[in-house]
Amino acid sequence: MNPLRNPVSTRRLGLLGLLCLLWGTLRAEEIKSPNGQLTLNVTLAEGGVPTYSLTYKGRPVIKTSKLGLELKNTTSLQAGFTQTDKQTRSFDETWTPVWGESKTIRNHYNELAVTLTQAATQRTMRVRFRVFDDGLGFRYEFPRQPKLDYFTIKEERTQFALAGDHKAFWLPGDYDTQEYSTVTSKLSEVRGKMKAATTPNASQTPFSPTGVQTPLMMKSQDGLYINIHEAALIDYSCMHLELDDKNMVLESHLTPDAVGDKGLIQTPANSPWRTVIVSDKAGDILLSKLVLNLNEPTKYPDVSWIKPVKYVGVWWEMITGKGTWSYTNQENIKLDSIDYKTVQPNGTHAANNTRVKQYIDFAAKHGFDAVLVEGWNIGWEDWFGKHKDYVFDFVTPYPDFDVVELNRYAASKGVKIIMHHETSGSVRNYERHLDSAFQFMNKYGYNAVKTGYVGDIVPLGHHHYDQWVNNHYQYVLEKAAEHKIMVNGHEAVRPTGLARTFPNLIGNEAARGTEYESFGGNNADHTTILPFTRLIGGPMDYTPGIFQTRISTFNPQNTSFVHSTLARQLALYVTMYSPLQMAADMIEHYNEHLDAFQFIKDVAVDWDDTKVLEAEPGDYITYARKAKGKSSWFIGSTCDEQGRTSKIDLSFLEPGKKYTATIYADAPTAHYEKNPQAYQIRKQKVTSKTKLTQFCAPGGGYAISLVETK
Amino acid sequence: MNPLRNPVSTRRLGLLGLLCLLWGTLRAEEIKSPNGQLTLNVTLAEGGVPTYSLTYKGRPVIKTSKLGLELKNTTSLQAGFTQTDKQTRSFDETWTPVWGESKTIRNHYNELAVTLTQAATQRTMRVRFRVFDDGLGFRYEFPRQPKLDYFTIKEERTQFALAGDHKAFWLPGDYDTQEYSTVTSKLSEVRGKMKAATTPNASQTPFSPTGVQTPLMMKSQDGLYINIHEAALIDYSCMHLELDDKNMVLESHLTPDAVGDKGLIQTPANSPWRTVIVSDKAGDILLSKLVLNLNEPTKYPDVSWIKPVKYVGVWWEMITGKGTWSYTNQENIKLDSIDYKTVQPNGTHAANNTRVKQYIDFAAKHGFDAVLVEGWNIGWEDWFGKHKDYVFDFVTPYPDFDVVELNRYAASKGVKIIMHHETSGSVRNYERHLDSAFQFMNKYGYNAVKTGYVGDIVPLGHHHYDQWVNNHYQYVLEKAAEHKIMVNGHEAVRPTGLARTFPNLIGNEAARGTEYESFGGNNADHTTILPFTRLIGGPMDYTPGIFQTRISTFNPQNTSFVHSTLARQLALYVTMYSPLQMAADMIEHYNEHLDAFQFIKDVAVDWDDTKVLEAEPGDYITYARKAKGKSSWFIGSTCDEQGRTSKIDLSFLEPGKKYTATIYADAPTAHYEKNPQAYQIRKQKVTSKTKLTQFCAPGGGYAISLVETK
Repeated sequence: MNPLRNPVSTRRLGLLGLLCLLWGTLRAEEIKSPNGQLTLNVTLAEGGVPTYSLTYKGRPVIKTSKLGLELKNTTSLQAGFTQTDKQTRSFDETWTPVWGESKTIRNHYNELAVTLTQAATQRTMRVRFRVFDDGLGFRYEFPRQPKLDYFTIKEERTQFALAGDHKAFWLPGDYDTQEYSTVTSKLSEVRGKMKAATTPNASQTPFSPTGVQTPLMMKSQDGLYINIHEAALIDYSCMHLELDDKNMVLESHLTPDAVGDKGLIQTPANSPWRTVIVSDKAGDILLSKLVLNLNEPTKYPDVSWIKPVKYVGVWWEMITGKGTWSYTNQENIKLDSIDYKTVQPNGTHAANNTRVKQYIDFAAKHGFDAVLVEGWNIGWEDWFGKHKDYVFDFVTPYPDFDVVELNRYAASKGVKIIMHHETSGSVRNYERHLDSAFQFMNKYGYNAVKTGYVGDIVPLGHHHYDQWVNNHYQYVLEKAAEHKIMVNGHEAVRPTGLARTFPNLIGNEAARGTEYESFGGNNADHTTILPFTRLIGGPMDYTPGIFQTRISTFNPQNTSFVHSTLARQLALYVTMYSPLQMAADMIEHYNEHLDAFQFIKDVAVDWDDTKVLEAEPGDYITYARKAKGKSSWFIGSTCDEQGRTSKIDLSFLEPGKKYTATIYADAPTAHYEKNPQAYQIRKQKVTSKTKLTQFCAPGGGYAISLVETK
Repeated sequence: MNPLRNPVSTRRLGLLGLLCLLWGTLRAEEIKSPNGQLTLNVTLAEGGVPTYSLTYKGRPVIKTSKLGLELKNTTSLQAGFTQTDKQTRSFDETWTPVWGESKTIRNHYNELAVTLTQAATQRTMRVRFRVFDDGLGFRYEFPRQPKLDYFTIKEERTQFALAGDHKAFWLPGDYDTQEYSTVTSKLSEVRGKMKAATTPNASQTPFSPTGVQTPLMMKSQDGLYINIHEAALIDYSCMHLELDDKNMVLESHLTPDAVGDKGLIQTPANSPWRTVIVSDKAGDILLSKLVLNLNEPTKYPDVSWIKPVKYVGVWWEMITGKGTWSYTNQENIKLDSIDYKTVQPNGTHAANNTRVKQYIDFAAKHGFDAVLVEGWNIGWEDWFGKHKDYVFDFVTPYPDFDVVELNRYAASKGVKIIMHHETSGSVRNYERHLDSAFQFMNKYGYNAVKTGYVGDIVPLGHHHYDQWVNNHYQYVLEKAAEHKIMVNGHEAVRPTGLARTFPNLIGNEAARGTEYESFGGNNADHTTILPFTRLIGGPMDYTPGIFQTRISTFNPQNTSFVHSTLARQLALYVTMYSPLQMAADMIEHYNEHLDAFQFIKDVAVDWDDTKVLEAEPGDYITYARKAKGKSSWFIGSTCDEQGRTSKIDLSFLEPGKKYTATIYADAPTAHYEKNPQAYQIRKQKVTSKTKLTQFCAPGGGYAISLVETK
C-alpha cells in the first residue's frame, strides 16, 4: 500500500509532520533512578532509529544501543520514527508477596514512556522505561491502532552494547534446554568455549556459536556487576542473547516457532520487560527485586491456598538408577491396549505402596509438608525420546500404587502427596487430559503438582521456549489455579518473575539441578553462580540435601558423585531461595545423619527478611534470612572448589537479644570429592555484636540456625 | 548397530536364512476376487522389492507396482525383503449400517496377507490384500517387534502403475484444501493444466505440478472405470498421488508435518487401506461399498442417538454477502477484553433472535429436523487469516442471540438448533474449549455440530491433512460421541469411510460445495463428478437446494450465480448421498416456489436401497433410491452443461405395485445460466414396467418422487 495515494493517509501525514516539528526527530530524553545513581538516555538517532544508554554512578553500563523489532512481510519497527509523545512519572509502593525472601517489597522507580511514530506506515510504538535504584526495565508497547493489528516478529532487535569485554557467567543459548553447566569466561572467549559447553541433553537446539541465555551475569573489569534478563514473559517468545564479540554488543534473539516465526502479536500488546540490574556490590544483584516489581500484582482474589512446601520424595532412587519410574521392563507400550495386571513387573518400581508409606511415615515424623512421588502413573516404559503423542493419561496408577489408600494414609498423618505430571514434552496430550488430571487431584486431595517436559516438544518443530509452548505453560498455571493447585514446572521456560502475578507458580527447574550430580556431576562452584543467574527470575526447585554424595555406595553402576560436602547441602536451603524445598536424598541416608538432618527440619521456607553477608559470583555466597513470623535466623554459605574462610558479622540480629547458633560446618579435612561427609556441629551463644569466622572446605559451605534464647 | 556383532542377532539371521530357503526370494502369490473377475499378483522382485499388480477381466488395471515405505534416519522398508509367511482367507458377511444408501451391505472378499522380513534389519512388515468383486484394498501392517518399535515415515512409496494415459477427474494435490474445481483431462495433460487449476483458497499448499488428490477417478481408453482412494485414515497422514507423467505411474505422497515428517508410527500399527475400485460400468463405482467395508464395524455400543438430519439454516445469507457472521464491524477484537454490549452493532448480523425464530418456524411448518445457525458466537470480527490463537470460545453468544430462549422455542416446536464450531484452524484453542463446548451443547439441547477449519492451521507449520491434525479431527469425533453429538466436519480431511466405525460422523465438506456458487461458481458438470470422486469416501454436506440462483437479485454486489437449474437443485438430494441434507436457500426463496419445495420436504435422507440408472462421470448421473422403511422411491438426475435426454427404466419398482410419480423437471427453455428457474412439475402413474424419457436442460436435471398408490 502506498499511503501517498490515500487521501486519509495524506491527512495523517500532515499531522505527523506537525508533530515532528513539535518534538524533533533527534530529541533526547534523560531520566535518573530515584537515588540518582543510574541515568538513562533515550535518543532517536539518525534515520529515526530509537536508541538508549545507561550509566551507573557515571560509569557506562549500556552504551548507546538500538531498539526495535524486525517484522515479517511488512515494514519493520526499527527506523523511520519520530517521537510524538512522552510521559514521565515516579512510582513508589511497597507490596506484600504471598511468599518470598522478605515480608514486603518496595517498588520504586522513575518512568519514561516514549511514543514513537513511523510516518511511512502510520504506526505507533511506545517504549516504556523504568529506572530503579538497582537497574533498568523497558518494554515495547504496541497500542491498538488501525495500521497495526496483527503482525509477526521476524526478530526482536534490542541491543545491549556493553562497555567492555566483561567476565561472564553464561550458558549456551538453546531453544530447548537450560541444563548446561555455567561457563565463566570473558565474553571474547565465548566462541572458543561454546562447543565444549554444549553438553548433551534429551532435547537441545543450540543456535549460534555466540548465543547465550539469560539471566546473563557479568562483571566488568572496573567492578560493576551487571545482569541482563527479562520480566513478565507472557504470550511472547523467550529471549536469548546473541553476542557480537567484536563490538561486545548483545542483541535479543527470540525462540522461533515451527515455521521460524518469533512471535504472533495482536495489538494492543506489550513485549516482556528487558532488564538490566547493575551495582558495584555483588550482593545487590542477589537482593534485587526488579524482575518481580516489573510483573503485575497477583490476579488471584484468593491466595490462601498457596503455601510454601518442604517435602521429601520417591525420586533420588530413580535419578541415581537404583529404582525405576516404570513398573515393567517392556520397551514399547500403548496406554490403550496394555494391561499392567498381566505384565511381568520389573521389581524395581519405586513408587510402590510400601515405599511410599515409608516416605509418608518419615515426612510425618519429621514435620515435612509433603511427599513427592514420581513414577506412580502408567506409561513410563517408553516415556521420552520417542516423540510419542499419547504418552501418559495422568490419572491411572500402576497396580502397586493405591492412590486412594495412600492419600488416605498421608492425610491421616497430616501429609500431602505431591502429584507428578511428566508430559515428555507432548503438550497437546497434556492439555487434553488437564481437566481430568486436575479433577483427579482435587478428588484425592493433592494440592501441588510437579510438571515435566523431558524430551523434544511434541508436535515436533516447536521448542520449549517458543511463544506457543510458553502459552501452554501459562495455560497450565492458570488452569491449576482454578483448581487451587500449586505448580512446580520442570523443563519449562525459565521464570521471569511471573510468580508475583501467579503465585501458585511455586517452583521451576529451568537450570541444571541436583539431578545432574547423578548424571556426571555439577561443577563445585555451581551453587555460587545460580543465585546470580537462574534465580534472578524466580525460585528454583534445586532439590538439595543429598547426604550420601557417593552414589556408587548404593548403585555401583553409577560412578557420579555429588560435587559438594554434606555441610554445604544444608547451606543450600538458605542460599538457593525457594518456597518449595525438597530434602532430596533417600530417607535411609537421613536416618544415618539425624544430627545434620536437624537443620533441614528446622530451616524455614518462607522469610521476613534476607541479607547478603558476602558474595562474589563463582566464588562464594553467604546469606542470612529471618524466618517468616519468627525471631529465628538462618545462615547459609557456599563456596567454590577452592575452599575459603568466611568472615561474617551478625549485626543484622536484633540488638540486645541473645541467640543460640547451631553451626553445621565442614570438618577441617572435608573436601567435596575426597571427604564430603566430614562435618561438625557446634553450638555457640551469639548477639548482634558477634563476628564469626568459619572454614569452608573446597566445594563446601556451612549452615547456621540462630534461635533466640529467652 | 551392526547385527553381525550381536550374538542374538546372528542366531536370528540363521533362522531367517532358513526361512529364505523355505519361501524363496522371488515367490509370487495370486488371488482372485470372489467372482473371479479380478486377479491380484504379489511378487518379490529382484532385490527383495515387494510388488503387486491387478487385472480386471484379464485387462490390466494396475501394472507391476512397487510397495514400501521410506523411513527417516534408518533403513527403509522398501527392499531386502524375503517372504516369510503368507495367510489367505475368504470373508463374506452382511452388515447393517446405522445410516446409509442401503439397508444392508455385503462385505465379501478374498484375502492374502504376506509377511515380509528384512534380514538386514531383522524387521517384519505385513501387506494385507483384500480382493473384492469391485476392487482391491491393501494396507501395510507393522507388527510389534523388537527391532521396529517407533519409526518415522519419510515417504510412503506405494505405486499404482497405470495401463495407459487415462482420462482423469482430478484436483490439484494440496496439503490444506480440497476446494478446487475438478479438472477433466488426460493424465498427460495434468502438468499443463495444474497452474490454472490451482485457484486461490484461504489456506492452500499445493506441492507439485503433477500432484493430485484422491479419490482420483479415471477412465481408460478401453472403458475401464478406475478409482484410487484410501480407507480408514486413522493416526496417519492423508495420502495424495504424485504422477510420473512419462510412465503413468502414480505414487503415494503423504502430507508432511511441521518438520516435514510424514508419520510417527509406534508398532503395532497399520497404514490406512489403499483402494482401487474398478469396473467396466461407471455405476458400479458409485455403488461400491469397498471403502466402507475396509473400515471396522462401529465402536459405539449405543448408536440410537445417531439420526439422519434434514435442516435449514442461517447460512446462505452470509455466504452470499447479504448478512454477516459478525455482530460488529470492528476489525481487531480480543475475546477476553471486548464488551459487545458497548460496541456498535453492524445491523447486518444474521444470527439474531428474530431471524432464527423465522427459521425455526419455517422448519417446524415444513417438517425439518433442525436449523443450523452460524455466527451465533462472539469472535467473528477477525475470525480467519490472522493466525489468531484464541479466536472463539464456543460458548458465548452475541448479545442478540438468546441461546436459552431460542433452544426453548425450537424444542417447543420439535426442532433442534445445529451448533456451529468454526475453529479458524486454531486446533489447540478448539481442544482447550471442547469439553465446555460439548457440555454447553448438552445443556441446551444441541445434538449435532458443524465444525469448520477455515484458514491455515494454527500452530503454523501443520497442515489440514497431516497426522497430527488428522488426530485432532478424530479426537473431536470421539469426544463428541461421548456427549452423544453428531459431527459435520468442514475443511477437515476428506472422509475415508470412517463413518462405519464412528457413525456420528454424519457429514463432511472436504470438496467444493454449494458455497462456491457464491464465490464465482461451480462448473456445471461439478455434480456429475463428485459422486465418483469425493463421495467415494463418505457423504458430503453439499448444501443443495438453492432456488434463487441469481445472487445479485438480493445482493447486487455479488455477481456470482448458481451453475444449476432449479430442478437440478432438487435432484441433488438424491444424487449427492448424505444422511445430512440442508435446504440451503433462504426461506423467503422457498416460499416463492412451494410447489418445487415439496420435493425437498418429501425426499428421504436415509435409504433401504440404491440403484444407479445411468451414469458417466462428467456427463450425467441418475440414481433411484428407496426410502428407509417405506415403499417410496426417489429419483434424481444431474447432467453437464450440454443437457441431454435421460431414458430410464423403472424396473426396480416392486412388480405389480402402482406408484404416483411426481416429476420435477427443467422446462424446455431452461438453462443453468440463462433460464435457471424454468421448471415444470407433472404427475404420472407408473409401475415397474414404465420407461421414462426426460429432458434435462444444460446444467439441469430432474427429481422424481414415486409414492405407492394404494
